Amino acid sequence: MLIDVAQTPVVDVYHALVGLVNPRPIAWVTTINSAGIVNLAPFSFFNAFGANPPVVVFSPTLKRDGSKKDTLRNLEALGEFVVNISVASMKEIINETSREVPPEESELELAKLHALPSLHVKPPRVAEAPAALECRVMQIIPVGNGPISANLVIGEVLAMHIHDDVLGDDGRPDAKKLQTVARLGGEYWCHTSDLFVLPRP
Amino acid sequence: MLIDVAQTPVVDVYHALVGLVNPRPIAWVTTINSAGIVNLAPFSFFNAFGANPPVVVFSPTLKRDGSKKDTLRNLEALGEFVVNISVASMKEIINETSREVPPEESELELAKLHALPSLHVKPPRVAEAPAALECRVMQIIPVGNGPISANLVIGEVLAMHIHDDVLGDDGRPDAKKLQTVARLGGEYWCHTSDLFVLPRP
Repeated sequence: MLIDVAQTPVVDVYHALVGLVNPRPIAWVTTINSAGIVNLAPFSFFNAFGANPPVVVFSPTLKRDGSKKDTLRNLEALGEFVVNISVASMKEIINETSREVPPEESELELAKLHALPSLHVKPPRVAEAPAALECRVMQIIPVGNGPISANLVIGEVLAMHIHDDVLGDDGRPDAKKLQTVARLGGEYWCHTSDLFVLPRP
Repeated sequence: MLIDVAQTPVVDVYHALVGLVNPRPIAWVTTINSAGIVNLAPFSFFNAFGANPPVVVFSPTLKRDGSKKDTLRNLEALGEFVVNISVASMKEIINETSREVPPEESELELAKLHALPSLHVKPPRVAEAPAALECRVMQIIPVGNGPISANLVIGEVLAMHIHDDVLGDDGRPDAKKLQTVARLGGEYWCHTSDLFVLPRP
């Protein structure tokens, strides 16, 4: 099958793209609004891109009605966020926080999760997550301006919090202990249980 | 453990970051140089970020000696590339193409793979890959300028090629048929065999 993008409806392009580019790691992002209310939402348009400085990018796309998500509005007002790492033991609650709620309600409180203060940024991290990245926005780049269009939030990582019980003997995160989860196309997610090792050539 | 980035060596920051932000999908990227030689290399700093227009970002980081990878040089000269989708049946050969070879040698030929012409861009796609995205560079954003620093290559997807045998009954890519692979920290990779479904709330 050939999908010539210029000739294809956006929704079909979306489903083909998320069905091909995967598994996608999930940024479970905390931001705060001007009233101090904590927003928490998952984003699978997310990855790390370099280490010097450490940089992550995630994309709160415009909604199907073309409006901005609370996360994007919050970042435009206060350019700070925390990426909480998404793991298997919390998969249902992560999915639950993708539900749309009014900006005056906190997904963190609705999910009965707890906040811990960050070191360098105002948004808190999720106490129940085994790791979190404190980030400062470097730039926000809109790509397009219609439904499901990208907003590239480029963030510099200032600090990383890692529970000791997901570290290996070498002091680095251990994939078998951390057990991240990821998104694929449709309603599919995957575990990272089926690991294999390929030494760099 | 707390990693305060400003106080931590870059290599330690790198290993913590890739150990936490995962599983990372793998862009297996074809570019061409001015002599027409096809470069092929895998990049796990990669994801999709929106659908309208469809946009992907990947990052050929600067090498540990601070120099540019061939892929980045090629993209600076000709802003076109193809993302071939990385699947389980090709994992060893994908890993093999991460080996450094001189720019006058083609990883595609070394790996005895075959090229198929693209519709909208000059770089070819890998015939053996079950899907490929033809992309045009919108922007390249360096973040930092030392070893392992990011170069955000923002690409607009112009066309997608998908083998019919990885499509589901709904005409969309089927995760169980496509079987993408991904990178984690250290030398770990994972299969996407351990799938689960979570309906959107």
